[in-house]
Amino acid sequence: RINSDRLWDSIMEMAKIGPGIAGGNNRQTVTDEDGEGRHLFKRWCEAAGLEMGLDEMGTMFARREGADPDLPPVYVGSHLDTQPTGGKYDGVLGVLGGLEVVRSLNDLGIKTKHPIVVTNWTNEEGARFAPAMMASGVFAGVLDQADVYEHVDKDGKKFGEELERIGWKGAEKVGERKIHAFFELHIEQGPILEDEGIDIGVVTHGQGLKWLQVTLTGKEAHTGSTPMPKRRNAGLGMARVIELVHEIAMDYQPDAVGAVGHMEVYPNSRNIIAGRTVFTIDIRSPEKEVLDAMDGRIREGIDTICEALDIKYKIEQVGHFDPVTFDKGCVKAVRDAAERLGYTHRNIVSGAGHDACWINRVAPTAMVMCPCVDGLSHNEAEEITKEWAAAGADVLFHAVVETAVI
Amino acid sequence: RINSDRLWDSIMEMAKIGPGIAGGNNRQTVTDEDGEGRHLFKRWCEAAGLEMGLDEMGTMFARREGADPDLPPVYVGSHLDTQPTGGKYDGVLGVLGGLEVVRSLNDLGIKTKHPIVVTNWTNEEGARFAPAMMASGVFAGVLDQADVYEHVDKDGKKFGEELERIGWKGAEKVGERKIHAFFELHIEQGPILEDEGIDIGVVTHGQGLKWLQVTLTGKEAHTGSTPMPKRRNAGLGMARVIELVHEIAMDYQPDAVGAVGHMEVYPNSRNIIAGRTVFTIDIRSPEKEVLDAMDGRIREGIDTICEALDIKYKIEQVGHFDPVTFDKGCVKAVRDAAERLGYTHRNIVSGAGHDACWINRVAPTAMVMCPCVDGLSHNEAEEITKEWAAAGADVLFHAVVETAVI
Ligand SMILES: NC(=O)NCCC(=O)O
Ligand SMILES: NC(=O)NCCC(=O)O
Repeated sequence: RINSDRLWDSIMEMAKIGPGIAGGNNRQTVTDEDGEGRHLFKRWCEAAGLEMGLDEMGTMFARREGADPDLPPVYVGSHLDTQPTGGKYDGVLGVLGGLEVVRSLNDLGIKTKHPIVVTNWTNEEGARFAPAMMASGVFAGVLDQADVYEHVDKDGKKFGEELERIGWKGAEKVGERKIHAFFELHIEQGPILEDEGIDIGVVTHGQGLKWLQVTLTGKEAHTGSTPMPKRRNAGLGMARVIELVHEIAMDYQPDAVGAVGHMEVYPNSRNIIAGRTVFTIDIRSPEKEVLDAMDGRIREGIDTICEALDIKYKIEQVGHFDPVTFDKGCVKAVRDAAERLGYTHRNIVSGAGHDACWINRVAPTAMVMCPCVDGLSHNEAEEITKEWAAAGADVLFHAVVETAVI
Repeated sequence: RINSDRLWDSIMEMAKIGPGIAGGNNRQTVTDEDGEGRHLFKRWCEAAGLEMGLDEMGTMFARREGADPDLPPVYVGSHLDTQPTGGKYDGVLGVLGGLEVVRSLNDLGIKTKHPIVVTNWTNEEGARFAPAMMASGVFAGVLDQADVYEHVDKDGKKFGEELERIGWKGAEKVGERKIHAFFELHIEQGPILEDEGIDIGVVTHGQGLKWLQVTLTGKEAHTGSTPMPKRRNAGLGMARVIELVHEIAMDYQPDAVGAVGHMEVYPNSRNIIAGRTVFTIDIRSPEKEVLDAMDGRIREGIDTICEALDIKYKIEQVGHFDPVTFDKGCVKAVRDAAERLGYTHRNIVSGAGHDACWINRVAPTAMVMCPCVDGLSHNEAEEITKEWAAAGADVLFHAVVETAVI
């Protein structure tokens, strides 16, 4: 078993960096706070005898040597970046759970055959720069590095320049590492495990996602003196699309979800009809057919809405991944570990995207999930218990060690 | 007749201060740019021999002495502040039209019995600080000076502190001036005059307005892993209220308008269901009963929407004025002037709020309107012709001089 106090203390220590305003964290990717978090993680890795690698996407790879250094390593980790109003556990549990795996191996004096590499993937959240899971996406060859370097945040700052500015752009080419297997521990971010009183989610699949960024262009005009029939209201258009997305998601739920969380309004003045709105539709489903059907209905609906309001539209897909089926062998290693340790467990589909979803395309991959209070995540009030964290890390430990072979 | 070249040149000179990004202006109230515009106006007033007064709300009063200095002055003016994406004429035409009246009197060597005061009212637009027509509202005793000093902009800056910062907070108590009559020249900001090919709008009434600032509080949660029935989506709630406002306005139009131009979303991340939204509903009607009925239906509708979505709401009235009937005598002075000068004219109801609407409560008041291209305003592309401006200023000149008595 891992050392649950040490794991918990490390999580709480990391949470001091980039504190939020309501008990959680604001440690968005490639900010100064992200840099500080990375330094802390690096110090811990070095203290544990690990050797730090850093690639051109800023992903950190902390290596514990194996008995046979030529064997491809087993990777374990997640991400340290957070949402602007994020929790203390989303991502962090997986990175520090990975660190706890090697710390526990050190305690026990065990050397695995395969090296073990603890990983912190850059920009998993996609909050500051779309898309989510950016560095793992480049690693898996799905996203283009030169392209994502140019992606801008709301202030027009470029991802590549910000990565360089905080001093965490490495020299290692991205995606050239051989991976024997990858394991990611994560909080569920949904209510199922807690509702059913189950310790461990054995993640068999992940939902697919599309992010559609929509720009509506109407005409700025006076809210008082412009007759109703003359209006070309991009704010009203956005409202109708938000409702449309909701209705379509309701048609397909529980096999789908959909919402708009990001909205910008120009010029955003009380007495000006919005001339332009920009917003991102987030739709997800474990079924590719459902996702595609939703996408089609949304595009059709936007066309109809905009025609009725005499406004123009542009739709850009700024994020996308297909539903994922995780590796049978790795999934079995997770299930066997839970079984062996006596934890209750069930198969589960991840509602969120994870770095594991991309890495699964280039290496055998699986995920371990633990419950979180009320299923709440992407909220500063995100909470888990020390026992849940310990159970998840125990299962991670056994699955990793089993795969890395003693 | 006034000097139309001089009037036009002054408008173009003022437009150089606080340029927008698309040919218009961003000279929002009590910004540095506003301060610069005030200095230019002050220089022009001094060159015309006027004496500048400044009250505690920052309103500028440039006085031309009358033959009988003890008579209450005739006031003429409007505002120099603009929307964030405003036009070159909204407000400016009225202030510089007033200046052109006294410049023309100077040219002709005419002394009126009553003094004439050219006025620049502070914060007419209400874009940076709600409500609109702030200084004239305090002058008329409808708004409380100590209260509006505390009103904050999006960055949390206070109106009173910003007014002091730019150096335009005067020592004169607000609202103590005696006003014989007030005339305001303004662009129509709507399409009627241009559509009908008419030179002059004789403004008989002004629409009433309510600004309802709504705060919806749901729960921040993950867009991917939160089941649809568990969501408390403040973004969806906002969308439904926007549609509600539109539908209610459509029910009453052409006797009413309604829209939401101002929206804020928290935390505004692509993969977080909005936990909080803040937005302002703008509803208007020339009929008080209609305005009240809309207000009632909106409040009822918000209650229903929020109950269905399990979100909380707060509604604050951040702006309000009743429909206005302008002074019969002043309106007649405007109509007679148009008639005498041979301009085509018609009675018109102002769709927008104006400083004249508040001053009408404490002194006989009327407005002169001239057409604007496509009825477009609160848009950088706002446009008028030199001829329209000249006709409006001619009518203003005659109405003012008639009232100030030669
Ligand atoms: N796990 C997680 O919240 N990832 C962010 C990407 C997503 O929105 O699913
Ligand atoms: N004239 C004008 O645009 N005033 C601003 C106040 C309003 O929204 O009516």
